[in-house]
Amino acid sequence: MRDAFHEDLDRISDDLVEMTTMVGKAIERATKALLEADLGTAESVIAADDDIDELRRQVDDRCVDLLARQQPVATDLRMVVTAMHMASDIERMGDLARHIAKVARRRYPEGAIPEDVAKIIAQMEQVGADLVTKTGQAIAGKDVHAAVQIAKDDDQLDELHRTIFNTLLGGDWSYGTEAAVNLTLISRYYERFGDHAVAVANRIVYLVTGSYGTEDEGLVTKA
Amino acid sequence: MRDAFHEDLDRISDDLVEMTTMVGKAIERATKALLEADLGTAESVIAADDDIDELRRQVDDRCVDLLARQQPVATDLRMVVTAMHMASDIERMGDLARHIAKVARRRYPEGAIPEDVAKIIAQMEQVGADLVTKTGQAIAGKDVHAAVQIAKDDDQLDELHRTIFNTLLGGDWSYGTEAAVNLTLISRYYERFGDHAVAVANRIVYLVTGSYGTEDEGLVTKA
Repeated sequence: MRDAFHEDLDRISDDLVEMTTMVGKAIERATKALLEADLGTAESVIAADDDIDELRRQVDDRCVDLLARQQPVATDLRMVVTAMHMASDIERMGDLARHIAKVARRRYPEGAIPEDVAKIIAQMEQVGADLVTKTGQAIAGKDVHAAVQIAKDDDQLDELHRTIFNTLLGGDWSYGTEAAVNLTLISRYYERFGDHAVAVANRIVYLVTGSYGTEDEGLVTKA
Repeated sequence: MRDAFHEDLDRISDDLVEMTTMVGKAIERATKALLEADLGTAESVIAADDDIDELRRQVDDRCVDLLARQQPVATDLRMVVTAMHMASDIERMGDLARHIAKVARRRYPEGAIPEDVAKIIAQMEQVGADLVTKTGQAIAGKDVHAAVQIAKDDDQLDELHRTIFNTLLGGDWSYGTEAAVNLTLISRYYERFGDHAVAVANRIVYLVTGSYGTEDEGLVTKA
């Protein structure tokens, strides 16, 4: 039997995992909205972000309540504080998906992304969605190996981000300034999405091992 | 006489104010580096960001330590938790100043910002620096009026951000794709800088009044 404190903490952990599920749907649907110029999907991603924000507030309240009632110390205290930080990062991932959906909405009925780069954006979404799934798994299992893998996978997102910038700056850009501005922002949103997953991963590593990961593991990254 | 808990909390508050001072210097110098293509200043902003990150870690550690030792409840507990959230936002403002300095460094010896828009960027810096000064004052004095003013001032930053985008998308942009990409990112960095100041302001309002500000006060903003 788990004691009351750990039961409450499990509940918080479940909510964080639920947040990652919601964010995973958000990034997938925001990308669909973007690549297919799908206004309805864009609108629904934007609206659904309120639910992620609300769940984050609940996690925060529950953490503060747990601190007040149980007055944990040492690792237990660190787990509660970490949960609040993770909730903040995951909520921000939802915001970034919403930003992507907003670009889709702003450009509708036209598309925001030229055909040539749509494939790279689709790859960014795949890596991003995979990252957030692994983030949920890492939280659920307090899984350091999964956390380290998140940091490695994020390198792919950074690489795709660089590919986008090389495309923009290579001298062959022929889609005009507005498309360049939109693509700059969009690519930045996916890149930041990955950074927040790494931040969560980093916190899991710290929680479990008591020290931050090494630079070799890609866990000491600066956004 | 303050009791031990409130003495510790004062110390944390002092550190947060010190962080805002460091961030104020960072945004001012990053903008100088950007507008004057000043590599030395860019490098020093980038290097100095480590000090902001380090102070943030100290604030976090001190908060966790305070929670463990004093086991505060109610408003006292909320103040400690809020301090951790504020440290996160202020640290992120430092990151954004560093990002601006990095664009300056990447473009050196050329400038990243066309003459025509330099004036708008200089205005963004002025508003941003003023925002972070007021953020420090609002933290030091738990000052709700200052906090509300921060949200109002941030509207100016959003307006300047829109002006930049109108310039980029107005059809007269003649500086090429690379300048457009850089300006898009730079303008976004200043805008986000302001968002984090508003987030801190929002937390002060909540801490003091027990409820979030209203939309009329500009305190319920979504980044």
